[in-house]
Amino acid sequence: MSLQLNDQTRYERGLAKLAEVDGKAGEEVVAPLGDLGRYIIEFAFGDIYNREGLSLREREIATVAMLTVLGRETQLKVHIGAALNVGLSAKEVEETIIQTVPYAGFPTAINAMNVLKEVVKERV
Amino acid sequence: MSLQLNDQTRYERGLAKLAEVDGKAGEEVVAPLGDLGRYIIEFAFGDIYNREGLSLREREIATVAMLTVLGRETQLKVHIGAALNVGLSAKEVEETIIQTVPYAGFPTAINAMNVLKEVVKERV
Amino acid sequence: MSLQLNDQTRYERGLAKLAEVDGKAGEEVVAPLGDLGRYIIEFAFGDIYNREGLSLREREIATVAMLTVLGRETQLKVHIGAALNVGLSAKEVEETIIQTVPYAGFPTAINAMNVLKEVVKERV
Amino acid sequence: MSLQLNDQTRYERGLAKLAEVDGKAGEEVVAPLGDLGRYIIEFAFGDIYNREGLSLREREIATVAMLTVLGRETQLKVHIGAALNVGLSAKEVEETIIQTVPYAGFPTAINAMNVLKEVVKERV
Amino acid sequence: MSLQLNDQTRYERGLAKLAEVDGKAGEEVVAPLGDLGRYIIEFAFGDIYNREGLSLREREIATVAMLTVLGRETQLKVHIGAALNVGLSAKEVEETIIQTVPYAGFPTAINAMNVLKEVVKERV
Amino acid sequence: MSLQLNDQTRYERGLAKLAEVDGKAGEEVVAPLGDLGRYIIEFAFGDIYNREGLSLREREIATVAMLTVLGRETQLKVHIGAALNVGLSAKEVEETIIQTVPYAGFPTAINAMNVLKEVVKERV
Repeated sequence: MSLQLNDQTRYERGLAKLAEVDGKAGEEVVAPLGDLGRYIIEFAFGDIYNREGLSLREREIATVAMLTVLGRETQLKVHIGAALNVGLSAKEVEETIIQTVPYAGFPTAINAMNVLKEVVKERV
Repeated sequence: MSLQLNDQTRYERGLAKLAEVDGKAGEEVVAPLGDLGRYIIEFAFGDIYNREGLSLREREIATVAMLTVLGRETQLKVHIGAALNVGLSAKEVEETIIQTVPYAGFPTAINAMNVLKEVVKERV
Repeated sequence: MSLQLNDQTRYERGLAKLAEVDGKAGEEVVAPLGDLGRYIIEFAFGDIYNREGLSLREREIATVAMLTVLGRETQLKVHIGAALNVGLSAKEVEETIIQTVPYAGFPTAINAMNVLKEVVKERV
Repeated sequence: MSLQLNDQTRYERGLAKLAEVDGKAGEEVVAPLGDLGRYIIEFAFGDIYNREGLSLREREIATVAMLTVLGRETQLKVHIGAALNVGLSAKEVEETIIQTVPYAGFPTAINAMNVLKEVVKERV
Repeated sequence: MSLQLNDQTRYERGLAKLAEVDGKAGEEVVAPLGDLGRYIIEFAFGDIYNREGLSLREREIATVAMLTVLGRETQLKVHIGAALNVGLSAKEVEETIIQTVPYAGFPTAINAMNVLKEVVKERV
Repeated sequence: MSLQLNDQTRYERGLAKLAEVDGKAGEEVVAPLGDLGRYIIEFAFGDIYNREGLSLREREIATVAMLTVLGRETQLKVHIGAALNVGLSAKEVEETIIQTVPYAGFPTAINAMNVLKEVVKERV
């Protein structure tokens, strides 16, 4: 089993990773969620996003693709922002969305593309 | 609009890309499917997989993540093979599957991990 | 509100419709399911399939398309049989499956096409 | 087979159960839906919610969990209200939403938590 | 393999079919989508909707049923309009939505029925 | 923020809870899964299942309902066993499955009912 960390470390480590990945947008989503928000920080960011083996860029490609096909647009908006934060271009996010079409069809891709446009517009 | 190719080219180009990505496993899935198989070759591989903007490695990370959360295990098996073909290690595929957990939970990740083990076992 | 029927009528009417639509395959699925099976007969077949406004042919086109994109292959097998029973050709079922691709992608369509082949093979 | 009731009884019984479970919110959703609304009353509430074997409290725990993972937020709002009506505390609804995380991930749970907050705010 | 057409033909043919099926609503959705929009025209409308074997009426029955159970309401709105354009009555669209209930339950059907009402209201 | 525990405690606590809930079946699923299995123990069982606010009986009602509508049959089998372990009768599990029908339709409920029968048969 890999190295164990105590929970305080998991929380702090998660908070740092969340800030790195999602910036302010992530904190705003997580802050009002109580224990659920704490698990997002500890588990999603403290445990999973802190793993080695894939770059943050690759993790966000996977995440944008997943959230597109799952149709979770609120979180997709946060993670399209995250993808841009960790170095993907808007063109590469568009490409990731286009890659979902053969696997889940046009409707979820159309919705994701409109979310991408919204994010890009807000960042100008 | 980007460069247009005639359909014969799309088909041939798709077939070449399918062979590059999926090897024999892809052909075996597609061959008996009639017009549906033809669209997989022309559209999924001729159009989409031939696009620039993401590497094949990145496309397969997205695809393994999507097929995991969609629970499409037959196609996941083919694309875990594809991921290994285009240069991901088994460890990186495992990492991609672990990245799905915060977004879609453990059950689909467990199933995907068992598919990965099957593929790795068959390749030894 | 439209005409009300008592439950005994709903059950008998549903059983007759189930036999018309699914033949023996439907009965085999429903018989061992207790109250759940009774609701399938009363509600799905007694109430819904007995409605006017769409032909059985049109209802099965809708049903094959839905079960394809939902990935429910056991029930899809029954309803591909039903589609053939109420007058669709195997070619028209194939066409219905192909119609799902733009909306839900290739993986569920591939699985459905393989179910269609299985049904056609068993009917020869 | 269990006792059969005629449809008028099913409708009246369903209407009474709907009022018990969802209060005014349920009626407002169902009233404008024509035959679809009638089936919700007859089948969902007249048949299913009137069954014995689970308490209303337990049925709403199951329903809140299902609607969370299915991402059906409009109906989730009605059933979070229903859960509070039949005796769950807001804390227990929160707990039900947290229980979904290992099975379907954070995005649907985040959305559900925000719906819970909305319901609680409206009830103050 | 069936007749091959060059891509320019596919695009033009798709555009004509899109206009026939979705009218102005389709064009408005597709126009700002770049390459994704081009694939919708070439593949979904140029390839799939131009196939023989099912009438446009039957294709839209399948599509309304699919988009209902997938919960993709933005596209459902476009295709309920398309269904009315190719000759279904509002009553037949309602019937198609009711046909989804046994396969995917009430929540997605309720949402679809509300979309239908919206479309009907806008068309008066 | 609630009491923090170090990770060794989370793992041990999770292992104990997993044994309590799923018996041997849970361990067999988790053991070969590497880090993914560790997260199931630490997070799903150490963190979530150890929370107060709902009884284990209520957690399993929620879980059986969720896994039914998600169509995750392998995990459903484990959790139907878990439901029986923590005190639900087979009749109450059946009732939970029937409760899913209005929300997700018959196909997933039929599959779940067949899994229940399998579990009951193996336990005799």
